[in-house]
Amino acid sequence: MVNEDKGFAIDPWQLRWAGLDLDALRRTESIFALSNGHIGLRGTFEEGEPVALPGTYLNGFYESRVLPYAETGFGYPQHGQTVVNVTDGKIIRLLVEDEPMDLRYGHTESHERVLDFRSGTLRRDTVWTSPTGRRVRIRSERLVSFTERAVAAIHYRVEPLDDDLEIVVQSDLLANEPIPAVEGDPRRAAGLDRPLVAEHRSASDLAAVLVHHTQRSGLRMAAGMNHELEVGNHPRLVVQAEDDLARVTIAADVARGDSLCLTKFLAYGWSARRSAPALRAQVEAALAAGMEIGWAGLLQRQRDYLDDFWTQADIELDGDAELQQAVRFALFHVLQAGARGEARAIPAKGLTGPGYDGHAFWDTETYVLPVLTYTMPMAARDALRWRHATLDRARARADELGREGAMFPWRSINGEEASGYWPTATAAVHINADIADAAARYLRATGDEEFDIDCGTELLVETARLWASLGHLESDGFRIDGVTGPDEYSALADNNLYTNLMAQRNLREAAAACTRHPEVAARLEVKDDEIARWREYADAMLVPYNAELRVHEQSEGFTRYACWDFDNTPESKYPLLLHYPYFDLYRLQVVKQADLVLAMYLCPDAFDVDAKRRDFVYYDALTVRDSSLSSCVQAVLAAEIGDLDLAYDYFAEAALTDLHDLYGNADGGLHIAALAGTWLGCVGGFGGFRDHDQHPVFAPRLPRPLRRMGFRIRWRGSRIGVEVTESETSYRLLAGDPLPVSHHGTMHKLTEAGLTLRNPPPPTPPAVTQPRGRAPRPRR
Amino acid sequence: MVNEDKGFAIDPWQLRWAGLDLDALRRTESIFALSNGHIGLRGTFEEGEPVALPGTYLNGFYESRVLPYAETGFGYPQHGQTVVNVTDGKIIRLLVEDEPMDLRYGHTESHERVLDFRSGTLRRDTVWTSPTGRRVRIRSERLVSFTERAVAAIHYRVEPLDDDLEIVVQSDLLANEPIPAVEGDPRRAAGLDRPLVAEHRSASDLAAVLVHHTQRSGLRMAAGMNHELEVGNHPRLVVQAEDDLARVTIAADVARGDSLCLTKFLAYGWSARRSAPALRAQVEAALAAGMEIGWAGLLQRQRDYLDDFWTQADIELDGDAELQQAVRFALFHVLQAGARGEARAIPAKGLTGPGYDGHAFWDTETYVLPVLTYTMPMAARDALRWRHATLDRARARADELGREGAMFPWRSINGEEASGYWPTATAAVHINADIADAAARYLRATGDEEFDIDCGTELLVETARLWASLGHLESDGFRIDGVTGPDEYSALADNNLYTNLMAQRNLREAAAACTRHPEVAARLEVKDDEIARWREYADAMLVPYNAELRVHEQSEGFTRYACWDFDNTPESKYPLLLHYPYFDLYRLQVVKQADLVLAMYLCPDAFDVDAKRRDFVYYDALTVRDSSLSSCVQAVLAAEIGDLDLAYDYFAEAALTDLHDLYGNADGGLHIAALAGTWLGCVGGFGGFRDHDQHPVFAPRLPRPLRRMGFRIRWRGSRIGVEVTESETSYRLLAGDPLPVSHHGTMHKLTEAGLTLRNPPPPTPPAVTQPRGRAPRPRR
Repeated sequence: MVNEDKGFAIDPWQLRWAGLDLDALRRTESIFALSNGHIGLRGTFEEGEPVALPGTYLNGFYESRVLPYAETGFGYPQHGQTVVNVTDGKIIRLLVEDEPMDLRYGHTESHERVLDFRSGTLRRDTVWTSPTGRRVRIRSERLVSFTERAVAAIHYRVEPLDDDLEIVVQSDLLANEPIPAVEGDPRRAAGLDRPLVAEHRSASDLAAVLVHHTQRSGLRMAAGMNHELEVGNHPRLVVQAEDDLARVTIAADVARGDSLCLTKFLAYGWSARRSAPALRAQVEAALAAGMEIGWAGLLQRQRDYLDDFWTQADIELDGDAELQQAVRFALFHVLQAGARGEARAIPAKGLTGPGYDGHAFWDTETYVLPVLTYTMPMAARDALRWRHATLDRARARADELGREGAMFPWRSINGEEASGYWPTATAAVHINADIADAAARYLRATGDEEFDIDCGTELLVETARLWASLGHLESDGFRIDGVTGPDEYSALADNNLYTNLMAQRNLREAAAACTRHPEVAARLEVKDDEIARWREYADAMLVPYNAELRVHEQSEGFTRYACWDFDNTPESKYPLLLHYPYFDLYRLQVVKQADLVLAMYLCPDAFDVDAKRRDFVYYDALTVRDSSLSSCVQAVLAAEIGDLDLAYDYFAEAALTDLHDLYGNADGGLHIAALAGTWLGCVGGFGGFRDHDQHPVFAPRLPRPLRRMGFRIRWRGSRIGVEVTESETSYRLLAGDPLPVSHHGTMHKLTEAGLTLRNPPPPTPPAVTQPRGRAPRPRR
Repeated sequence: MVNEDKGFAIDPWQLRWAGLDLDALRRTESIFALSNGHIGLRGTFEEGEPVALPGTYLNGFYESRVLPYAETGFGYPQHGQTVVNVTDGKIIRLLVEDEPMDLRYGHTESHERVLDFRSGTLRRDTVWTSPTGRRVRIRSERLVSFTERAVAAIHYRVEPLDDDLEIVVQSDLLANEPIPAVEGDPRRAAGLDRPLVAEHRSASDLAAVLVHHTQRSGLRMAAGMNHELEVGNHPRLVVQAEDDLARVTIAADVARGDSLCLTKFLAYGWSARRSAPALRAQVEAALAAGMEIGWAGLLQRQRDYLDDFWTQADIELDGDAELQQAVRFALFHVLQAGARGEARAIPAKGLTGPGYDGHAFWDTETYVLPVLTYTMPMAARDALRWRHATLDRARARADELGREGAMFPWRSINGEEASGYWPTATAAVHINADIADAAARYLRATGDEEFDIDCGTELLVETARLWASLGHLESDGFRIDGVTGPDEYSALADNNLYTNLMAQRNLREAAAACTRHPEVAARLEVKDDEIARWREYADAMLVPYNAELRVHEQSEGFTRYACWDFDNTPESKYPLLLHYPYFDLYRLQVVKQADLVLAMYLCPDAFDVDAKRRDFVYYDALTVRDSSLSSCVQAVLAAEIGDLDLAYDYFAEAALTDLHDLYGNADGGLHIAALAGTWLGCVGGFGGFRDHDQHPVFAPRLPRPLRRMGFRIRWRGSRIGVEVTESETSYRLLAGDPLPVSHHGTMHKLTEAGLTLRNPPPPTPPAVTQPRGRAPRPRR
């Protein structure tokens, strides 16, 4: 079965694409990208061309660039960071009787690529006839190892199908490869021209290493390759190394029925401090280790790693095969983004493309880390350790801007602010509460004392200090003026409700952490009166509400703004930010993405049931979802207020964000947070999972198309399996100690005996509308 | 008597500087600049060096540059404009026995420069001994003709004092002269590297012409020179012309007691359309005319022109000689900026320097045009004609941003928006009401029917249309959300009081104009219901008020913001914008410049007496005067509430803005609006002049240091002379018909008999404070 729209065959455990559509290349290169969170390889063809956007990324490896301003201002970041397309080791060029294998020429008899969620590999199988009539079959499989962090490998086999053929294979390491520039869309990456400076090259036998450093950021990287070759006749071998190219050339006569099989082992390393010889040694050691394990060994370890992951993280959806596939695709890519980052950021695009310059934003903490916290808590911890490692920079930034505590960057690779537009960056201070929330969530879910003492409490304290110095007590409450919430179609508003509620939690969590760890509090020079102030500010936090309309305000005064003229906004004018000035967007009622609605998800206790219904109706009518971060949150809240059809539509939109390229920019990389949002839609939406009490809270409600949903949660030492049908929910204790769980508001003790409980009927939903033309595509 | 601080001798009708301080060069070059509003020459030495910032400007002649953005957005201007330092004709190099005359070498026995407000010339008198001991006296006088718009002239005389000497004089036209770049301060100019491309050169006898065009903006200019020479012996003459240099060289043996006297006539022209031959012809014609008039004739016409100006515009202050001088200096420079612009903008720096890239802002309409309206109404009319000439661009900008009517640029030379930071540019929509107000004021003061029909009503209608499409009726009134008022330490606020009140007036003036000129309204397709809507919106205009504090709010919610921590802001941190982020400035109560206080001046009827007192006290305590536009307005309101001492301090600050270089940036050009504000301080402050009724309103109150103040106002066909002493005010009808005037709230008929009326004692002022360290310097 093929989804005709987008060409992916529907299969529960893999993504298959038989298309040859060159226009889809960029997008499929992102979708078929492999990564372990440290190395990322876009899904380009081994033969090098046709190619849309080649990309090989190392997490944290960036080049600096000067940020230009038509008019500058105090505190504007002077330097940005841009992810570098490093030395490309994916290339294995193929010549068949002197004819370069290139799908744009000759005849392709069959061709497919398969991303396998259980093997963790990208397979490819092509039967191609050259323009001069030579027919070959090419099969490849590649992986970026989850277990050997510095290693990737490609297994590449060519078979003559009709005649004996002379086959030449050129396996390259290519630095500074040309990449096309894209201009005019702020969400794209900045162009870098030949960012790498050659420093070392060496080659012998079937192996080579290139070492480069960047022009300005002072980072150094090494790429190495080695090969295993199986071919019948004696091949002719040449190895060469230039500054920006290392190449192993293999020429062999291959008989019909025989094949040439090359396994290419790749290793990467980078450092801001280590020398070229040290980095060379590092990648040679990684290559040696990878070859010692061997291709079969790497495959097996990859599968074992993924078996374990799926045991912890899988979501089963019965009743919608495409979304079942989409959910696993999403979880697979979330894993790829977060698995082995190890105290580096998880960028908005993972390592699948250069979009947003490779920066990490708040959505890592708010969308990605919840998934990792409940499925791969060590990955969540490592991502938070990265934030903690940048605390000095965040403290310096706060100091530069005259604030106390820490101000984390809105977008960054190295922990320094890299945004060139402060109203939705510096002013989007909610990121500090988002980081605090992610830390508190991780601590609550894992009870990881060591992290709490080393990092968690400090993150909470330094962010709480920011809020205390940013807001002030007035007669109407604790105010936080002039900030920007998640909705980027508003900016510099007073008392953004999301920000205020998250700051409230931040202040309280910091107070609790200091009580929990007085020795850490002492180290951080937190005095009792500071803690008392945090509590006072939290208790007094202003929550804007329009009593006349009986709805909460996204920010103070928001509900008195004129409404965006949706009726006269054609579909071609979305996303609005590319067609209307910020001046208009900011001063009118129009919402880019869930903001107050996200607050209802993350801070559910701040709203009563009726308020949630009214607020959701009010804000859904204003929300255009020009951000991919929106629909999953709307799905969660639509489910909570009982509109399961709408919830399912939103959920489907989130799940298909990249597979259907709904935002038209999957070519620059996948939307990792939206993919993570697919998990939030299932677990938070249809599972009703909330995590701000000391025990897990569920309120499962299945939308009509689904017959059954299964998912799993780790909570402290325990693992819980949840199976939801329309009428009931079964909870199983898969591991660990019994624990209390809440089911639709009632507490139960989950023991090894398990629990099977009825799902109450959902409440009758209110009538919900969206802006004209912005309703989600119905999936009913 | 010399003001030791700044080196200017105090004299009522001239500005004399005997200093040789090279550090003061930049500043004095601005102060001694000559201009007629069309041509501007900075006050550099004829000999070319030492020089700080050479500058020769033609009003409207600019180069384009790409505006860079770290992150771009819809509607951001892509090109900026920068005033060009055009071909420098001021240079007359002098060699005394082969030694270049340069004040940095040899010995200067005496040296002074005099800017004469009645002759309209800059004189210079230097006795200098060369390093080899040759002593000469150099006297020069220069003018930029008010009557011959394209002409400037320099009268230059060298006398050997001790011996016969060989004197060589090189009189240059120099294009693309090097100018030092200044970085890091957004108020400076962008650097242009060799902006002029040579197109024509010609030279013969003592004359030469160079024609150039700009690289990108496509403008063309011509500069021409010719000379008259008086010298005893037969001089050797050489004339040459290269692409960027034309030179007349005169070598002569000059006997002791004799002199070499050179009169250099300069002519300039520029055009976006005319060819190089046409422009060459134009400047040659202007040169011929200038030489026909001759140096003595030019001097006489200049003096006659100024005699007429002072008759109309002079302000006499008895009791403070320095401020008397400062007021005339201010009026002289306002005249220079506005006299002969003739449908070009009046830039913020006039033609005295490259600051702010040579752009015109709202302060032309709000600060400069009131002065011109009541002293040189034709100049005010011409400046408004420039705005009208750019209406198509303003309409296109409104259309681009989805609004109706016209949106004038925040900063521009050619009518296109040239700002690179939209929150205080695009969002500072009050400029449209400011332009409308200036047009309405001009119409009210002059009754100029022709202008009303051609331009005035259209300006009022198109700006009113903007307000109607920008605001909206809510239950709390007509709201204008998300805009920036005059105070640039706030941005994107809701219902900025100044903006709302000025928009209210704009709407009403447009309605009145359409009633006055139904034929113009019909041409502009204004229907009755549109007029009715304008009136409805004006009547419903929201005026934010904090009932608890009993003060108006600068914008909605402003008074609930935390206050800036003035106690911990050292003086070295001013201006705040260079030391603190906009993020903090915008969200706290701190006021860069009069905003609500300006509204109290321009819209006095919107506040009762007590409100003015309370509001002034509230906002004066928050206003740091980081803008030179502030103190004159604060002077006016301080006078109105009865604090005449404070008013005088503020007035003195305004008057000395450039003479004392209070903002440290007079080197980039003078603050024309602050100079105009000196008039506002006298006439609006101590004269209590208000002009929003159909007759002039006065409420004179003299501050203690002044014994007497005299000023003049043109109103319709009449001219009024006002003389104020502490106890009484005399009004005289100098010309025209009798008219009603208001004196301290009572109507009187002013006839040829004149009126002498007692001044009531001022009200007891409230206690007024300023932010720590920001009180004006006491002058009592």
